[in-house]
Amino acid sequence: MSQKPKSFIEVDSENHFPIQNLPYGVFRTVKNPKPRVGVAIGDFVLDLSEVERRRMLSGCDLPQSPVFDKSALNTFMKLGRPVWRKVRRRLQELLSAENPELRDSDGLKTECLIPMAETVMLLPVEIGDYTDFYSSKEHATNVGIMFRGKDNALMPNWLHLPVAYHGRAGSVVVSGTDIRRPKGQTRPDDSRPPRFGPSRLMDFELELGFFIGPGSEPGEPVPVDRADEHIFGMVLVNDWSARDIQKWEYQPLGPFLAKNFATSISPWIVTLEALEPFRVPAVAQDPEPMPYLSRPDDWTYDIQLQVSMQGANMVREKIICRSNFRYLYWTINQQLAHHTVSGCNMRTGDMLASGTISGPTEDSYGSLLELTWRGSKPIQLAEGEERKFIADYDRITMRGWCEGDGYRVGFGEVTGKILPAE
Amino acid sequence: MSQKPKSFIEVDSENHFPIQNLPYGVFRTVKNPKPRVGVAIGDFVLDLSEVERRRMLSGCDLPQSPVFDKSALNTFMKLGRPVWRKVRRRLQELLSAENPELRDSDGLKTECLIPMAETVMLLPVEIGDYTDFYSSKEHATNVGIMFRGKDNALMPNWLHLPVAYHGRAGSVVVSGTDIRRPKGQTRPDDSRPPRFGPSRLMDFELELGFFIGPGSEPGEPVPVDRADEHIFGMVLVNDWSARDIQKWEYQPLGPFLAKNFATSISPWIVTLEALEPFRVPAVAQDPEPMPYLSRPDDWTYDIQLQVSMQGANMVREKIICRSNFRYLYWTINQQLAHHTVSGCNMRTGDMLASGTISGPTEDSYGSLLELTWRGSKPIQLAEGEERKFIADYDRITMRGWCEGDGYRVGFGEVTGKILPAE
Repeated sequence: MSQKPKSFIEVDSENHFPIQNLPYGVFRTVKNPKPRVGVAIGDFVLDLSEVERRRMLSGCDLPQSPVFDKSALNTFMKLGRPVWRKVRRRLQELLSAENPELRDSDGLKTECLIPMAETVMLLPVEIGDYTDFYSSKEHATNVGIMFRGKDNALMPNWLHLPVAYHGRAGSVVVSGTDIRRPKGQTRPDDSRPPRFGPSRLMDFELELGFFIGPGSEPGEPVPVDRADEHIFGMVLVNDWSARDIQKWEYQPLGPFLAKNFATSISPWIVTLEALEPFRVPAVAQDPEPMPYLSRPDDWTYDIQLQVSMQGANMVREKIICRSNFRYLYWTINQQLAHHTVSGCNMRTGDMLASGTISGPTEDSYGSLLELTWRGSKPIQLAEGEERKFIADYDRITMRGWCEGDGYRVGFGEVTGKILPAE
Repeated sequence: MSQKPKSFIEVDSENHFPIQNLPYGVFRTVKNPKPRVGVAIGDFVLDLSEVERRRMLSGCDLPQSPVFDKSALNTFMKLGRPVWRKVRRRLQELLSAENPELRDSDGLKTECLIPMAETVMLLPVEIGDYTDFYSSKEHATNVGIMFRGKDNALMPNWLHLPVAYHGRAGSVVVSGTDIRRPKGQTRPDDSRPPRFGPSRLMDFELELGFFIGPGSEPGEPVPVDRADEHIFGMVLVNDWSARDIQKWEYQPLGPFLAKNFATSISPWIVTLEALEPFRVPAVAQDPEPMPYLSRPDDWTYDIQLQVSMQGANMVREKIICRSNFRYLYWTINQQLAHHTVSGCNMRTGDMLASGTISGPTEDSYGSLLELTWRGSKPIQLAEGEERKFIADYDRITMRGWCEGDGYRVGFGEVTGKILPAE
């Protein structure tokens, strides 16, 4: 049995950020408010702008001009997998328990390693376009049953292509941002005129999203078996949804105001390199997908997911959903191949999210809409409280991680609190 | 009768770019390939980076750092209407027939005035998000009749709110860009499986779009009576659409690949200042819109619109549609007020398009879908050709202008040719 890689920084087995992970984020500190790139290691952030400035990344084929002294990861993301791999290897080397370079230099450690508690995490990417898929068969089926009945639950196209729509990139916010309850038109009673006011059916959607590294040209589809070359890494996504606004507005062009007030993402981008050991075979597909979506050896990732809720009067959060990324029907490779097959180009920083990740059991549904079955089965929280949908001051927190042998490769969390409408 | 303003540059009465217009664009030349901002004046482009560098815009409250020596208009657009008005007044002064400053300096003219024929126009804006409305009642009704029958033509929400969806910002291209015919899944026969291949039902959509100048904060809706403070100006938009891909994919989340391969815009942004003389009362609305959309004195603009088509074998283009921006049911102020009422923020450079602008008569329909009534009434072109939808190598050109007294305030054109699928 080979020795597990180990850092000189203590990282316990449940921490999301061991040396096997090294996710990228953008942060600032009170002492130095300039946004810059770092990687998470245990309870620390390694300041890559500092590491780069000190020429400790030579040999990684980075360009001359700074890549990490930036307010977004786009410059690094554009460089592609061969460079990403070299930087990852070098960072693992730098942080290794065996390597004295950083370990034995108190000066360097003070300059480069910042306690996570002293950092403020920022949106890690300048997001070009944001696309949201609808790739969980369980979710699409549940929603279909609720709105169209059991016999027409899945639309005829659903098993043939990964359904998706364009979301709003400009309202993607980083974890920790409070969200104002949206106002809008709703029509709770079809026999009466629509009304205006704060959404009464606020919901979350548990999702994961991936970011495009090197882009693609207009008219040049990305083949499914080369899709991963364009994918930098993944984050947790909470696609906040106002169900009552959605119901009234979405015909015939899809969700708009019901979704565009905010989408929250976790601050650390976990790379595909870090996820590699957690590959599992993709879900079997029937009917066989068309050739442009077909990849016999396609994979997905075993990523455990959890959603918790905490009301203003609750002493601690309660877990209300346990799901897994591997439940998804369409893979990230298929999603990207489909997205570009029309000739649609990709730009570095584009974000593609999975859609709600629901599993087969009732406690694995990734939205309150499903968990409470449209409000008909309220969930019980602590302190005698129950919820059909999100109440003001409720906090929703999503977490995700891959379980290794004695370590975790985790995403940290995406959290947000709903504030009352103004 | 007051004297019409006149430039020392000759501009005939049908030219789109007299001194009354002064639209903004981004261009480069072979001699100087650096993208920079200019305004159109007759057959010339006034190079604003040069004008600014020579300090000929002092007194306009521009910041110290360059605003026009940029590859996009965003920096200028962010400054807001008071500055835009000052710059406009100063440029009208500089270009005036009465003013010797530029008129009598051959040196300055050579440096600052570039023949339009020597310029290459670029995408004028770094577009954040692109939203597409659906604001023509005639268009929504026509499409509704074709797909759902006469009795359910308009969806119940349509008269209550300006329906819209998120488009793809990253595939917006400037006029003149050729467009590769998209491939994708279609299902022409519901009794057989879907198939894959080039779209057979390629269409255009005649639209106008507007750009956001100063943005707005999350959770802070833009009131309808202050919406125009956020609007910089407008362009022509061709929202290319693959009708067969759309029909198969769009349920339940809206159009995706059918639209995201390309959207073309005209290169010159016509400002609201230039459009002011062409304000006309907005269309009467019934039912009365909700208070957040209500503006008793709301206006729109009298902008004549034209679409022409030219096949590979045709000696000249043929006009196939004549419409007008004033036909739209929902105004740009209502669109922006609705878009932000959920708390959705706006960023400088966001683009909001009108949706297909169809008028009341059959020759005013803004798409082939409507003009040929789903292909059932092919349109007759020259040289004995006819079309149901767009054929390979067809060129579609859209033009728009306001007709003044002896002059035009025009948008120029947005043109694009469909290339065969690869």
